[in-house]
Amino acid sequence: MKTYLDCIPCFFRQALEAARITGEDEKTQKKILDEVAKALPDFLLSASPPEMARKIHGIVKEITGINDPYAEIKKQSNKLALSVYPDLRKKLEKSPDRLLIAVELAIAGNVIDYGVKNTLDVDGEVAKILSAENKAIKNESEENFNYSQFKKDLLDAKEILYLADNAGEVVFDRIIIEEIKSLDSNKRVIYAVKEKPTINDALIEDAIFCKIDKTAEIISSGSDAPGTILSLCSEDFLKIFKKADLVISKGQGNFETLSHVKRPVYYLFMAKCPVIANDVGCKVGDIILLQKSG
Amino acid sequence: MKTYLDCIPCFFRQALEAARITGEDEKTQKKILDEVAKALPDFLLSASPPEMARKIHGIVKEITGINDPYAEIKKQSNKLALSVYPDLRKKLEKSPDRLLIAVELAIAGNVIDYGVKNTLDVDGEVAKILSAENKAIKNESEENFNYSQFKKDLLDAKEILYLADNAGEVVFDRIIIEEIKSLDSNKRVIYAVKEKPTINDALIEDAIFCKIDKTAEIISSGSDAPGTILSLCSEDFLKIFKKADLVISKGQGNFETLSHVKRPVYYLFMAKCPVIANDVGCKVGDIILLQKSG
Repeated sequence: MKTYLDCIPCFFRQALEAARITGEDEKTQKKILDEVAKALPDFLLSASPPEMARKIHGIVKEITGINDPYAEIKKQSNKLALSVYPDLRKKLEKSPDRLLIAVELAIAGNVIDYGVKNTLDVDGEVAKILSAENKAIKNESEENFNYSQFKKDLLDAKEILYLADNAGEVVFDRIIIEEIKSLDSNKRVIYAVKEKPTINDALIEDAIFCKIDKTAEIISSGSDAPGTILSLCSEDFLKIFKKADLVISKGQGNFETLSHVKRPVYYLFMAKCPVIANDVGCKVGDIILLQKSG
Repeated sequence: MKTYLDCIPCFFRQALEAARITGEDEKTQKKILDEVAKALPDFLLSASPPEMARKIHGIVKEITGINDPYAEIKKQSNKLALSVYPDLRKKLEKSPDRLLIAVELAIAGNVIDYGVKNTLDVDGEVAKILSAENKAIKNESEENFNYSQFKKDLLDAKEILYLADNAGEVVFDRIIIEEIKSLDSNKRVIYAVKEKPTINDALIEDAIFCKIDKTAEIISSGSDAPGTILSLCSEDFLKIFKKADLVISKGQGNFETLSHVKRPVYYLFMAKCPVIANDVGCKVGDIILLQKSG
């Protein structure tokens, strides 16, 4: 996806959020915004928004010397998400369509606010999101929520690459991957996280903490981009990306960076921002399960 | 008011809105945002937000060669507001507290969306805003909506300076100024607009079109700032600003640029943005009638 002009104010909002999370003073925060401003004229709209986001978070690291400003937030998200895992399994097991509820839970994991205080709150949020999602999915056109085709392709696939998004969310991804493996234990599922810290994106340590290694192989994309910018990915990753029978891409960042790429990918996310909703042709808040090749 | 870091993303949002209103293509719009970005590092947070807004709208004018991008919007707002004038008068005349309803109407004029299609729509919006305001005013603390003190000071004042905000809104200001004059026809009311186009701020031509010259003397601030930056104002304006018995300042822009100034001013506006609400110590959407000296 190209960058739209509406993304530019949002870049500064994201930069300010990250700057504040480092705990640095207002002067340093202004310096970060100034450096982002200096980078803007060289940034072309033909690049995807996460390419600018990567620059922004690079600036935050460089100015503050803090390599992983979101470390504490990620730890907290992982713990909270893990604490609701047994309940998520229960929801799955009592569902008449286990794969569908697994897809919904995977979305819930992306949408949930891990800033909430305790397990009970997270549980309540999951329930809220699930009920909202059920409604959204029912209203969804086949075009943007193509579950039947997804189920068919998934059954056929032997090797599946799953592109992770955020920490915490990994636990919810684990649910759907466990379900995929329960369909056929011979399926190979590869779970790709980021190589280096970027925003609250999952790293290998988060994947292991959330115990996804019990059901999938973990690799890294080889990059620190908040999304999957192929030119920055490792050879090992690219090899798997090319040869996998099915690629499941989680979250907006992966969609933004891959939607133009010439290989079919199943995008699974909630359209949280108006620019992406407009690009997809859906409403903000819609659940997307869309196969697309650029 | 100083500039808060949260204003920075909003500067880019404002710049994009203005760039789009000029009708220029995406390339030119990006160029405008790039120039705003280049200006950011030199902008100090100790300055007020409208100082940056003035820079932004200067950049828009310079790059596009369009001196008054909001000209058509202002004309439309004036016409629509003027078409509801008889109805506004009726509302005033049947009110048990005419000055209070005049204050409320003055706020409604600031809040109303003149992008709506016709007189009936504007009428409906006024009614909506009035009923919402009544609630808001009832919940207001004396501190932020000091109507009784305002009424007393207004009765005592012989010379009143009224700082205008936007086109269209002038018609609503006319209602309150007519009410002030009806309290004592010997009161002198001076209505100050901007000297040159800036956003949708009222100019002398808007004030005359809305017939405020029938009840007040019109002057200009001498500047093109979207607010009242005293260092940019004319000598004539400053003389009146100093010697007026009462200054009524309308809208957020005037508050942002004057709140630190060492002379008592009555600020009349709705806190539309979270930064200003936080600075005042109120909620977004609150109606403010506050006397303050910096």
